[in-house]
Amino acid sequence: ITSKQPNIGTTIFTVMSQLAAETGALNLSQGFPNYNCSPKLIELVNHHMKNGMNQYAPMAGIMPLREAIAQKTFDLYGISYSPNDEITIVSGCTEALYAVMTAIIHKDDEVIVFEPAYDSYVPCVELNGGKAVYVTLTPNNDFAIDWQVVKSKITERTKAIMLTTPHNPTGKCLTQSDINSLAEVLKDTNIFVVSDEVYEHIIFDGRKHLSPAMHPELKERTFVCGSFGKTFHTTGWKLGYCLAPKELSAEFRKAHQWITFSCPTPFQYAFADFLKEPDNYLSVTQFYQEKRDKFINWIKDSRFEWIPAEGSFFQMVSYKNITDESDYDLAVRWTKEIGVASIPISVFYANKIDNKILRFCFAKDDEMLERAAERLCRL
Amino acid sequence: ITSKQPNIGTTIFTVMSQLAAETGALNLSQGFPNYNCSPKLIELVNHHMKNGMNQYAPMAGIMPLREAIAQKTFDLYGISYSPNDEITIVSGCTEALYAVMTAIIHKDDEVIVFEPAYDSYVPCVELNGGKAVYVTLTPNNDFAIDWQVVKSKITERTKAIMLTTPHNPTGKCLTQSDINSLAEVLKDTNIFVVSDEVYEHIIFDGRKHLSPAMHPELKERTFVCGSFGKTFHTTGWKLGYCLAPKELSAEFRKAHQWITFSCPTPFQYAFADFLKEPDNYLSVTQFYQEKRDKFINWIKDSRFEWIPAEGSFFQMVSYKNITDESDYDLAVRWTKEIGVASIPISVFYANKIDNKILRFCFAKDDEMLERAAERLCRL
Ligand SMILES: CSCCC(=O)C(=O)O
Ligand SMILES: CSCCC(=O)C(=O)O
Repeated sequence: ITSKQPNIGTTIFTVMSQLAAETGALNLSQGFPNYNCSPKLIELVNHHMKNGMNQYAPMAGIMPLREAIAQKTFDLYGISYSPNDEITIVSGCTEALYAVMTAIIHKDDEVIVFEPAYDSYVPCVELNGGKAVYVTLTPNNDFAIDWQVVKSKITERTKAIMLTTPHNPTGKCLTQSDINSLAEVLKDTNIFVVSDEVYEHIIFDGRKHLSPAMHPELKERTFVCGSFGKTFHTTGWKLGYCLAPKELSAEFRKAHQWITFSCPTPFQYAFADFLKEPDNYLSVTQFYQEKRDKFINWIKDSRFEWIPAEGSFFQMVSYKNITDESDYDLAVRWTKEIGVASIPISVFYANKIDNKILRFCFAKDDEMLERAAERLCRL
Repeated sequence: ITSKQPNIGTTIFTVMSQLAAETGALNLSQGFPNYNCSPKLIELVNHHMKNGMNQYAPMAGIMPLREAIAQKTFDLYGISYSPNDEITIVSGCTEALYAVMTAIIHKDDEVIVFEPAYDSYVPCVELNGGKAVYVTLTPNNDFAIDWQVVKSKITERTKAIMLTTPHNPTGKCLTQSDINSLAEVLKDTNIFVVSDEVYEHIIFDGRKHLSPAMHPELKERTFVCGSFGKTFHTTGWKLGYCLAPKELSAEFRKAHQWITFSCPTPFQYAFADFLKEPDNYLSVTQFYQEKRDKFINWIKDSRFEWIPAEGSFFQMVSYKNITDESDYDLAVRWTKEIGVASIPISVFYANKIDNKILRFCFAKDDEMLERAAERLCRL
């Protein structure tokens, strides 16, 4: 078999989670909570299964769930999507991103990707025949986006620009000024925006989540990719969605219909019910604010340096005061030696740029966070 | 947006199921049961959810499920797959087929597809840059495969041959002679076999399911794509798997890891437990034998002609004694006028060949089948 992805191994998340399991380390690497979702949500799934909701959902998702998403999106962000034509339920944001690329990329199209980039972005582009064009963000200016650089990367072949807000791994959030600049840069082009917003509810210090789709000139070209996994502590249910104007959604659905066709029915009915109570998602913000604050407080006597995450459930820390080992080697070594697993940021750069930064996931119960912090403070 | 699939609309299953819902027709079109899965299975899902099994499963699937599949595959078919390297859990057979094509097709590769073909096969090939080469089967010789014709279609660019057994929509099963001919035709080539076996347990009149992977010369080149949905009345849980030798599975997993990454964890644990009791899948054969026999018995006074399905939960019938309307128009008209929805077979042919055949799904409770048959007998 001639590999189409000769340089691709296993994702860093699989590598680090496996190493953590083998060594018994506290696993602050892969982004998932170590606590359970709401018992109410489980009860809802159970109820719908018993009620026979176990056969194919419609290809685009069950209507009550699409309606609930439309309602929430309008209430929170003031943007309207038609449940009928503009909202599609998919197997997690991973599938959403893949299917968007399948729908839009024609051979040799370019897609602008900010790095550090979540590890599936570039393979999504390349497997669909496209080429990733990088805009590199660095800690030197706190990972801020220079929109002049973005503009300079646009060519005749640019098909889309991928954004993540809140951002994984940096925890940065798009500002209104970023979004205005984006609109300015894309004016008079046909470039699509693909916006990964899985951490929309995990945002700190009073910030408001801003989606590019909230900008009137951007909405028509934007695919918003969202998910329930991070918000509701159900990363293992693999349910997400894509919001896009009718014509874009029509092409998106054509891809989705061949890739997975439809998504688990009982989870869809459960979330449709669960979303009816806004507190179920609104309370998530405060929940993670406390987690972030506690984690930062518990590591305050360590020799790390950090800027508090603006959003997401990840905290980046610089270890340059401790060692100049490479971040990858260090993440592996500390997993084994001090028993705390993390993700080295270099893996999110095409050229493995090593900024001496590790990413810790704080979606863990207080006990695990405190124990991990204790070990980190001893370094 | 420039469509990559300008001629693709909504799948026939969505069209007919929607029409059935709108008109209140008995829906014998899309292939899913109208009865619930085992309460034991629901209880297992509930148990594992309560137990916190709601976060990401490993990318390849949880080990106990891979082990259970390995055991069943060995017990039933005498073929060995390593749970570690050769079994991958995916979001339904739909994703399995898509990911196989993503893994193997290089631009302009050809894939041999038998028609009538399940409707996702050709888009899977084309969206991944390949070209479908058709071998057309017809009712004139009961949809038998002429292996000389298959051989004549092979070119330097042939990358794979797709098979379905038991076959949807024809209900035909591969014979040992077919498999021997396949091995003969593929000898001295590097052509892969992609075998869709989602109806493996729904097979009639004492037949034994035969997979191409059971042939020693074919196993090393075969991707077996299976599913739990049809076997366990859980089409809406979207859980399937791909069995393939190590090197092939490695490339398959690279595709899967970017397409959906992983699959619902609580369903995986539930099936791992459920598969431990072989009667849970062995009993399915008898269950559907009775369904097929009843349905055929109930339509015996109709003016249809048919050959009993050898497998799958579909019965094809010829209506040429009743009308010479096109099958598509007739399926739509009968849904509206007599209240029974079916699938026109022409949609499974690239050139929409109209053999005057409709497909009825008999995975329905006896009451619905009997009522549908009554209406069909009145024609
Ligand atoms: C799909 S596994 C990765 C989970 C995650 O989002 C992360 O750790 O960044
Ligand atoms: C994925 S919807 C189609 C269900 C099915 O297998 C069929 O009706 O043929």
